[in-house]
Amino acid sequence: MAARSRLTPEREAELYEAVLDLLREVGYDALTMDAVATRTRSSKATLYRQWGSKPELVAKALRHAKPGSVAEIDTGSLRGDLRLMLERSDTCQLERDSALMRGLAHAVTQHPDLHQALRELLIAPEMTGLDELLRRAVERGEADAGNPALKLVPHMLIGAVVTRQLIDDKPLDQEFLMTYLDAVVFPALGV
Amino acid sequence: MAARSRLTPEREAELYEAVLDLLREVGYDALTMDAVATRTRSSKATLYRQWGSKPELVAKALRHAKPGSVAEIDTGSLRGDLRLMLERSDTCQLERDSALMRGLAHAVTQHPDLHQALRELLIAPEMTGLDELLRRAVERGEADAGNPALKLVPHMLIGAVVTRQLIDDKPLDQEFLMTYLDAVVFPALGV
Repeated sequence: MAARSRLTPEREAELYEAVLDLLREVGYDALTMDAVATRTRSSKATLYRQWGSKPELVAKALRHAKPGSVAEIDTGSLRGDLRLMLERSDTCQLERDSALMRGLAHAVTQHPDLHQALRELLIAPEMTGLDELLRRAVERGEADAGNPALKLVPHMLIGAVVTRQLIDDKPLDQEFLMTYLDAVVFPALGV
Repeated sequence: MAARSRLTPEREAELYEAVLDLLREVGYDALTMDAVATRTRSSKATLYRQWGSKPELVAKALRHAKPGSVAEIDTGSLRGDLRLMLERSDTCQLERDSALMRGLAHAVTQHPDLHQALRELLIAPEMTGLDELLRRAVERGEADAGNPALKLVPHMLIGAVVTRQLIDDKPLDQEFLMTYLDAVVFPALGV
């Protein structure tokens, strides 16, 4: 049996980037381990040994691409924290991510194993980070502990991201997200 | 050349329902005019003569399935209007629609002709109905004419619909939508 080889961080990053490129190009259904192996000139055996399955590989590639975790954000105010959270993505990235997210929102309805991998590896850690950020806001007295909107921040933000192009036929950009924060998220949170 | 035959309203409804069933089962990409013809026991010639193209057929099927137009709603208050708008869909329908909408949100990024058909036949008329509903609220003094959230109501509502399952792993239901109205939409609109 071959010795389990470790990938270098550079090689791992390269693989993750290729997975996301393929996801954007062909979507989750058509993304095969074969296609990833060909694109990255690696063997399918390596991919399976390293990641176990396609949903896990996709979830880890998405986690890798994120510009830092929400848990690291602590500007001292709720408005500052949420602004920074959105400012960290550049516009070009946002546009690409919104297409990716629409594709994945569809794919999870068809593939429970993808849904589970995304929840465990991507959504749950971010929810924990966001809950922490909101908990601090409540402690500082910026938001009311009983406000039901505290549990709805991800729904508001993801809604803005996925609907901009669909409803307004305009690209998603920072300016729209900041308008949305001011007009929807902050009033709902009462800040 | 064969005479152009009119479909009966019953037959038309049957065809639209079959198109939506197929959309839910296989998604937009895999939905072919052949599949629609087979499922509905009609000829492809009839489908093309009646609807011109697949995007148009899909957009009209979606419009047909809607439980009335937003433009018909006028309860006398903004809160009443928005509640009624959401109450008209039954829970089972909502669940089915949210899967359908996630699929379509993805498909429009790949198919500009579908995006255009949906915008013209489905989104634009509803936006006009919603704008009218909101205009009356402003006239009654319930909402401020300069509130930027007036333009963001569809983003908020669609966000709630598409993210419920993804974020919370719970089915979309009336109760969640009413909570979302109270916690997000009404505070943003200042009512």
